[in-house]
Amino acid sequence: MTIITSKANSVVKNAKKLHQKKYRKTSYLIEGWHLFEEAVQAGAKIEKIFALVEYGDKLVDYPQTVLVTEEILLDLADSQTPQGIVAIVQKEEEEHLPDLSRGKYLFLEDVQDPGNVGTMIRTADAAGFSGVIVSSKSADIYSLKTLRSMQGSHFHLPIYRMSVEIFVEEAKKNHLPILATTLSQNSKDYRELARLEDFALVMGNEGQGISPFMADQADQLVHISMKGQAESLNVAIAAGILMFYLS
Amino acid sequence: MTIITSKANSVVKNAKKLHQKKYRKTSYLIEGWHLFEEAVQAGAKIEKIFALVEYGDKLVDYPQTVLVTEEILLDLADSQTPQGIVAIVQKEEEEHLPDLSRGKYLFLEDVQDPGNVGTMIRTADAAGFSGVIVSSKSADIYSLKTLRSMQGSHFHLPIYRMSVEIFVEEAKKNHLPILATTLSQNSKDYRELARLEDFALVMGNEGQGISPFMADQADQLVHISMKGQAESLNVAIAAGILMFYLS
Repeated sequence: MTIITSKANSVVKNAKKLHQKKYRKTSYLIEGWHLFEEAVQAGAKIEKIFALVEYGDKLVDYPQTVLVTEEILLDLADSQTPQGIVAIVQKEEEEHLPDLSRGKYLFLEDVQDPGNVGTMIRTADAAGFSGVIVSSKSADIYSLKTLRSMQGSHFHLPIYRMSVEIFVEEAKKNHLPILATTLSQNSKDYRELARLEDFALVMGNEGQGISPFMADQADQLVHISMKGQAESLNVAIAAGILMFYLS
Repeated sequence: MTIITSKANSVVKNAKKLHQKKYRKTSYLIEGWHLFEEAVQAGAKIEKIFALVEYGDKLVDYPQTVLVTEEILLDLADSQTPQGIVAIVQKEEEEHLPDLSRGKYLFLEDVQDPGNVGTMIRTADAAGFSGVIVSSKSADIYSLKTLRSMQGSHFHLPIYRMSVEIFVEEAKKNHLPILATTLSQNSKDYRELARLEDFALVMGNEGQGISPFMADQADQLVHISMKGQAESLNVAIAAGILMFYLS
């Protein structure tokens, strides 16, 4: 196995570029053994592995492994505790449009925070949803922060990215009911919804909520009635309550 | 109003010390207008206000206001967008033990992440819970990060801090059922729980879950059944699903 001890090495420098979205066209970085094992299990193409020398034995079956110093690993990782391994994984994006004729989908309309995006995808996975669609302006799902919150759920369920307009058009074409979450009480409390087998649940931007266009196009506006004095719920918490109630 | 333009000013330096837990014995920092207004509305004692010059007019009724430069404000704040105001607020901790003879309580057992602690308190507020008890080893609720996630909910509902042992002792003494959340399937799914008016819901540490002591002392172990391939839910999401289901 190759050993690299200098941060100036071009292989290291190129890998580190993947911290920036503009370089993540075809591949992205993951950190930690849990995500690495999820990637292997999912059959993802692992282009390069950076690991501490002590893990060399564990990685003999992976000729793409490069052994590095702790300093390099911390530099490549985003967290304080990359747990000895960082890898470059090839993107496998869903190229086609999802089949919205049936299934339970989560649509994220311009959700900004990577932690919220990742957590909601992880929760959609746990709730047995068919897939997640993120709007073009939502946070990138391949940032280290999103990947950390997502905990490998992008290996379990398909994730699509498209504009709000195309999503609405596809949902309408397939007669998939759109349930859009709003803070407004001028909508149905989720506990009063009729049970649906197939639907798309829309969560809006952290500050603005769903767009007027979405509010207009939705088949049903939904809110979560609150008993206390809190003005709102964190968007990922609201999504969790709704997804588990509806599934 | 006093104007301070130097970061070396002792008033600024002392305020900045409140970023460190050891200095937050009697007071803490808040940032942003939303939290400031919540503090005013709650009648909290506001010891000092740091604001940009342009907000001087809005703060004429507050002689404790000091006008500062943007550089100083960014230095005092933790976020990139302190929205023009940072204030020192006096702590009003619940000194007495909570009355656990009735009510819905959330107990956080050694939850480490400030964002998780803050989000769960905000959700407990929204769900109409009576109060939140954090174990001695949970994250400090007065860090800027916790306060940001909490969104002022500590002004709405009482928050207590005590050891796991004392909490269990008090709950038992008051015959308050303890529902402890676990990942183990060897427990009841939350949808099968009998409806309870009064209870304490226990959420555990992010990595370890609840302690063996808690698992042993709980009246009921609870889990959230999952349909997908995700191994677990984020603790704050799980707490949100459970609190809204139980309330």
